[in-house]
Amino acid sequence: MQIRVDLPQNAYDITIAPDSLDAIGEQLQPLNLGQKVLLVSNPSIFKHYGERVQKSLESAGFAVATHLIPPGERYKTLKSIQKVYDTALQNRLERSSTFIALGGGVIGDMTGFAASSWLRGVNFVQVPTSLLAMVDAAIGGKTGVNHPEGKNLIGAFYQPKLVEIDPLVLKTLHPREFRAGMAEVIKYGIIWDADLFDRLEAAARLNSYHFINKELLEIILQRSCQAKAEVVSKDEKEAGLRAILNYGHTIGHAVESLTGYRQINHGEAVGIGMVAAGEIALQLGMWSDRDAERQNALIEKTGLPTKIPADLEVEAILETLKSDKKVKDGKVRFILPDRIGSVSISDRVGEAVVRTAIANCR
Amino acid sequence: MQIRVDLPQNAYDITIAPDSLDAIGEQLQPLNLGQKVLLVSNPSIFKHYGERVQKSLESAGFAVATHLIPPGERYKTLKSIQKVYDTALQNRLERSSTFIALGGGVIGDMTGFAASSWLRGVNFVQVPTSLLAMVDAAIGGKTGVNHPEGKNLIGAFYQPKLVEIDPLVLKTLHPREFRAGMAEVIKYGIIWDADLFDRLEAAARLNSYHFINKELLEIILQRSCQAKAEVVSKDEKEAGLRAILNYGHTIGHAVESLTGYRQINHGEAVGIGMVAAGEIALQLGMWSDRDAERQNALIEKTGLPTKIPADLEVEAILETLKSDKKVKDGKVRFILPDRIGSVSISDRVGEAVVRTAIANCR
Repeated sequence: MQIRVDLPQNAYDITIAPDSLDAIGEQLQPLNLGQKVLLVSNPSIFKHYGERVQKSLESAGFAVATHLIPPGERYKTLKSIQKVYDTALQNRLERSSTFIALGGGVIGDMTGFAASSWLRGVNFVQVPTSLLAMVDAAIGGKTGVNHPEGKNLIGAFYQPKLVEIDPLVLKTLHPREFRAGMAEVIKYGIIWDADLFDRLEAAARLNSYHFINKELLEIILQRSCQAKAEVVSKDEKEAGLRAILNYGHTIGHAVESLTGYRQINHGEAVGIGMVAAGEIALQLGMWSDRDAERQNALIEKTGLPTKIPADLEVEAILETLKSDKKVKDGKVRFILPDRIGSVSISDRVGEAVVRTAIANCR
Repeated sequence: MQIRVDLPQNAYDITIAPDSLDAIGEQLQPLNLGQKVLLVSNPSIFKHYGERVQKSLESAGFAVATHLIPPGERYKTLKSIQKVYDTALQNRLERSSTFIALGGGVIGDMTGFAASSWLRGVNFVQVPTSLLAMVDAAIGGKTGVNHPEGKNLIGAFYQPKLVEIDPLVLKTLHPREFRAGMAEVIKYGIIWDADLFDRLEAAARLNSYHFINKELLEIILQRSCQAKAEVVSKDEKEAGLRAILNYGHTIGHAVESLTGYRQINHGEAVGIGMVAAGEIALQLGMWSDRDAERQNALIEKTGLPTKIPADLEVEAILETLKSDKKVKDGKVRFILPDRIGSVSISDRVGEAVVRTAIANCR
């Protein structure tokens, strides 16, 4: 299956096919991406899948160098990027060469930023191995690393030449990580694709890869990638529409940040954030109790948390909201649901409303 | 005077006007660049011109934060960029905010790279204060920093929203720096604008700002910026044509690098590199003795060196050429003159020819 990210200058394909890890070399061949490749991954993912990818690339005539980054957000730093540069230099990667990210969102974001800035930009290919990376992080060109005082403050918009998804790698994904990815899938249901929402709602169980049949998994991947591709195609650099992808991410980011990015992972924070955004919309009379209940029930069925941790003080959350990188002229911007399948953007939500919504999510 | 850099997605103006430092605030107002500005400079330039720029910005309603970077290539590092990020964070610069570079090429390259990567890209404005930055570095979006093992290996293509040139700041430029800039001006004469070359040739003296009359200075700035703007507009990311801007830079870079970037500055190295490229073209029978003499005489009249230092070994130069970031599939690419005003690109120059050319430039 193939989905086009139809950008005016940097259009590319997302391909979804079982066992495509073994075909990556052939797939890259017609794209004219130079002869040298730097494959960036983390040790455990590389142990599972590195050999297959490397073999496929070498069979297709690529010279492959590899670079491994230890797992976790705490290595998502400029220092790690410098080490990627060093490997690129040692292996004489050229402007026409290609960096390939084999991993989850952290590996993809870092490899993309390194690719955007090595020799002022080399080719970049995403091979996402987590559900979250497949349906979200790998698509749309947001790359970057963390600043000691904030996530993803440093980075670039830099589009890949190809996103290749092999759904079978989800087998080895930790169930908690799978659920984290599902939060973004549910998000697409709320902001863009009511039919996707209905399909998820109709499923008996959603809280593990192993409970999801092949047909539903295909729908999940295809529809989510399609939603992301459509939004990004319409607004590559987040001048307007693209902001709707941040649904659940405003309060979500604050919760994630205040819990130190460990206790609660990104997808879990987005789940909580969607519940909170729904609460704000309810306060404002923007959407119905029925839709809010449907949303929250689906999040719960997926095994994601729906409550803001009791120990997070409301003042701390409000303060963190104000330092978000999406703040414009000091105003916090919320993405709020109108109904299942549609959201609006507002930077005029009063603080009292936010306070009440937070209180209602305890 | 206004020159358009006519890029499909990121078009912008270069303005050239005496005392425009005092008008920068007004000029930025209609460009919709947010309310917050980070003014990046180095201490000595800031001492000369910082107050005027800051005052103009503040009178126009901008909130101005400043960040100074010590002078010199050895501060052109990722570490310096991190400090720019820190200042941006402390002053809560937003996505809609603007970084302004007030300085020479090093400040411009670094500020541009910081702007490209802070919050995945904020607005960027160039206020070049050296001749080299005015006619070359500030135009065209090449930004970056050095890797310990090579110049400008890390960076991005990131276009400014405006390049504002105040020719009167050249008064305080060190004469050696002025001559370095003149090397790039002569380059435009060879690669693009034979009439500019003739005008330079007709001038009695060129080796100091103070010997150049107002009219000629205007021609120098206008024609050079025009040449750069035209080339960049046709090939923003150096897929082809833009490579001609590297005339004199191939052997020039090697000489600069092997002398540790101190003994010989960039412009001086380009002067030597043009003489060497001319020698290669002579060897290949591509251009005439007459044109080579005219070129070399003009470089000499400007007070630039024309000889490769005797202590640089030919083997070392050849080795350095091969590690240049513009190497493609291991082949060194030379820009070679056909006649005054026109050059060709070739990656088929034999090593023997290069050796002879180097020997002839001693």
